Amino acid sequence: MKGTDVLVIGGSAAGLTAAITAKRYFKDKKVTVVRKEEKVLVPCGIPYIFGTVGSPDKNLIPDATLVNNGIELVIDEVIGIDRQSKAVSTVKSGSITYDKLVLATGSSPVVPPVKGADLEGVFVVKKDVAYLENLKSALDKARNLVIVGGGFIGVEFADECRKGRELNVTIVELLPHCLALAFDDEVCTLAEDKLRSQGINIITGTKVEEFLGNGKVEQVRLSNGETLPADVVIFGIGVAPNIELAQMAGLKVDNRFGIWVDDYMRTSDPSIFAIGDCAEKSSFFGHGPSLIKLASVATHEARVAGANLFGLRRARGAAVGVFSTIVGDLALGSVGLTERAAREAGIEVVTGTAKAPDRHPGSMPGTRELGVKLIFTKDTGVIVGGQAYGGTAVGELTNLLAAAVQHKMRADELETMQVGTHPALTASPVAYQVTNAAEDAVLKLRS
Amino acid sequence: MKGTDVLVIGGSAAGLTAAITAKRYFKDKKVTVVRKEEKVLVPCGIPYIFGTVGSPDKNLIPDATLVNNGIELVIDEVIGIDRQSKAVSTVKSGSITYDKLVLATGSSPVVPPVKGADLEGVFVVKKDVAYLENLKSALDKARNLVIVGGGFIGVEFADECRKGRELNVTIVELLPHCLALAFDDEVCTLAEDKLRSQGINIITGTKVEEFLGNGKVEQVRLSNGETLPADVVIFGIGVAPNIELAQMAGLKVDNRFGIWVDDYMRTSDPSIFAIGDCAEKSSFFGHGPSLIKLASVATHEARVAGANLFGLRRARGAAVGVFSTIVGDLALGSVGLTERAAREAGIEVVTGTAKAPDRHPGSMPGTRELGVKLIFTKDTGVIVGGQAYGGTAVGELTNLLAAAVQHKMRADELETMQVGTHPALTASPVAYQVTNAAEDAVLKLRS
Repeated sequence: MKGTDVLVIGGSAAGLTAAITAKRYFKDKKVTVVRKEEKVLVPCGIPYIFGTVGSPDKNLIPDATLVNNGIELVIDEVIGIDRQSKAVSTVKSGSITYDKLVLATGSSPVVPPVKGADLEGVFVVKKDVAYLENLKSALDKARNLVIVGGGFIGVEFADECRKGRELNVTIVELLPHCLALAFDDEVCTLAEDKLRSQGINIITGTKVEEFLGNGKVEQVRLSNGETLPADVVIFGIGVAPNIELAQMAGLKVDNRFGIWVDDYMRTSDPSIFAIGDCAEKSSFFGHGPSLIKLASVATHEARVAGANLFGLRRARGAAVGVFSTIVGDLALGSVGLTERAAREAGIEVVTGTAKAPDRHPGSMPGTRELGVKLIFTKDTGVIVGGQAYGGTAVGELTNLLAAAVQHKMRADELETMQVGTHPALTASPVAYQVTNAAEDAVLKLRS
Repeated sequence: MKGTDVLVIGGSAAGLTAAITAKRYFKDKKVTVVRKEEKVLVPCGIPYIFGTVGSPDKNLIPDATLVNNGIELVIDEVIGIDRQSKAVSTVKSGSITYDKLVLATGSSPVVPPVKGADLEGVFVVKKDVAYLENLKSALDKARNLVIVGGGFIGVEFADECRKGRELNVTIVELLPHCLALAFDDEVCTLAEDKLRSQGINIITGTKVEEFLGNGKVEQVRLSNGETLPADVVIFGIGVAPNIELAQMAGLKVDNRFGIWVDDYMRTSDPSIFAIGDCAEKSSFFGHGPSLIKLASVATHEARVAGANLFGLRRARGAAVGVFSTIVGDLALGSVGLTERAAREAGIEVVTGTAKAPDRHPGSMPGTRELGVKLIFTKDTGVIVGGQAYGGTAVGELTNLLAAAVQHKMRADELETMQVGTHPALTASPVAYQVTNAAEDAVLKLRS
């Protein structure tokens, strides 16, 4: 029987990061990752396989990352956990004993009970190389693509699938706007305008009622009475935690939210940790459990779990939700609560906005307009959310907002924050968007 | 006699921002800016006039910024302040009375007492359109340019002046490295390598002894015995505060550090504020007065002063020093103390570093390597400085580090910070440079 000190089940972002962190913190411990996939996809890179990057093989996490860190890799499927003897049983390798076990079993795409969802040509977004190669072949032959769900996955697929293809793309979204969970209406509209300007059809406030076809999908019937032609359908409506192993092992789980963990990422069995999409999260804003599933939250939890394996060193933060994406040439970032979500949660908020060129003077080549919206609680002036849109500078600017939210900065602190500005890299110090948006809010907070 | 509620002397970044802030905070007050320049240059954009941007006229702060905000603009020179009667006297317009006065008189380039510094062809970097047009004409005819000082100005001029010109450029720097006040040696070396790869000659650890020529500069004699041919010389070795008006008015001033101000930006006369390069600053790191002169510090102080004019609302932060620049295609950012400066100040530090592609997977187009170095105090694990280098993402990533330093974040907080990551915009969440550099430091702090 094989044995290891730390056994990580799952080789995606969470599992990989937990294994690396464990090895960095505890050099003398044997760390093993067991995963069922021969090759592991960069999860956030999946939409880009279908356009920019070109193939699943160019979107892999190299195993060298494990090997170079002295981590053992086992390609196998774990089918059970025996907590008494501290061993897992696998399909091919038999049992592996562990001192500490980390569950990073991830999530699986949700398929809603829509009639015809089992027709050929209806796909979900699986983290599986062969499955995605099939989807790619289907897209290469298709004329009409319908994407169900206008969240990040749906929008990114819509944008990418048209690259190099003569394809009619329609997004069908249940909510009034695409990306509505991460952005307020005015920012959603910018993204939708950009998508439409690229020839993508968007139908919002509408449900998919049925998929029609003879063995293979041919049409999509919508709640608004419309029927769309479709050779390929892609579902991007969310994921559910993979909790089967944990459940079978008698760990505390919630079907919707995932495997229960404490602040140190320990499950109800203190020798077993759970991290990433399979683990329950709480909201940073005190609304109870959070459904946010993000590689960056997963790696946060993985770093916490990895450090805590042999003694508690870190408490995790509740999930803030930090997102960024790019639609055509419009980058978008979001942190924390939208104004809409804050109001729905009963928080009285004040917002501030600012727009300015992202270089200065505006005659610098490559200058783009970059806009920022910040959301503060009216009572305390503490930032609870932020949104940004513009050129690629939005990526790291979003992480500045993420730091601000996690450190509960106040509007007046952001208003007078010292920042670095440079003609080729940022807005001018006079017009810098974050400070100016904060000032806008401060002036409203005063009145 | 004219009168105004708020009179701002100076129309560059500090004066402009103070006037706008004053008007935003106090809508009913009359706000007037008096400045001597017909046209105002974007200060940080000056090096780019000589290459990327092409002319001073494309690097102006538009007066519309004042007019659109309801601010009155007077083009005139203030020659005296009568604090008793609360009025300034000007060359053309006579007196202007004020209720609150804001001094934003800026700084002037330092010319060291080197023999021959008065020869034709020897320039400083003045914020003056006509002067810079002369410099541009001189460069257009020159074959050999010597830049004295390898700080930000020197390095940016070296990079820009070669664009579209057949020009031999040499930087002469007194310290062992270019940019040595903002970066540690290993990062300075990256910048120097990039400059050299563009054909720029760099001579460090060397002093300029004399300029030789007959009326017009022809040669530069160095402390290492070398003599360089030179048609044009540009000094970029620093600036001194413009304190004459304040001094004449009997305000407390320091010749080296500038006009004395309290935490609310008030001078020794509580009706008079001073901001930006002309005002004294203290170091964020408790080393007494700071010589940092930066548009972003100036605008920080302007926002504080603007809000404080009619009642104290904000205290300024001590100067952190947040810099970013780009050399060729290598962007560089620095915040707070370098490792060298921290050690020289007697602070025991621990550093952490990380490098990773700035997109993920690495097959995404436009991927660049981006590196981060973080500096923490050994005793408390609080960040006191950070440096970044890579593609343009460095600009806003530097501002994330600026927020971290200003909010005294600890290494373990940065290690597990939740960040947003996206294939086209940032590193992968597994490899994200800031969290990984923090982890590197945390592991050293433990041992």
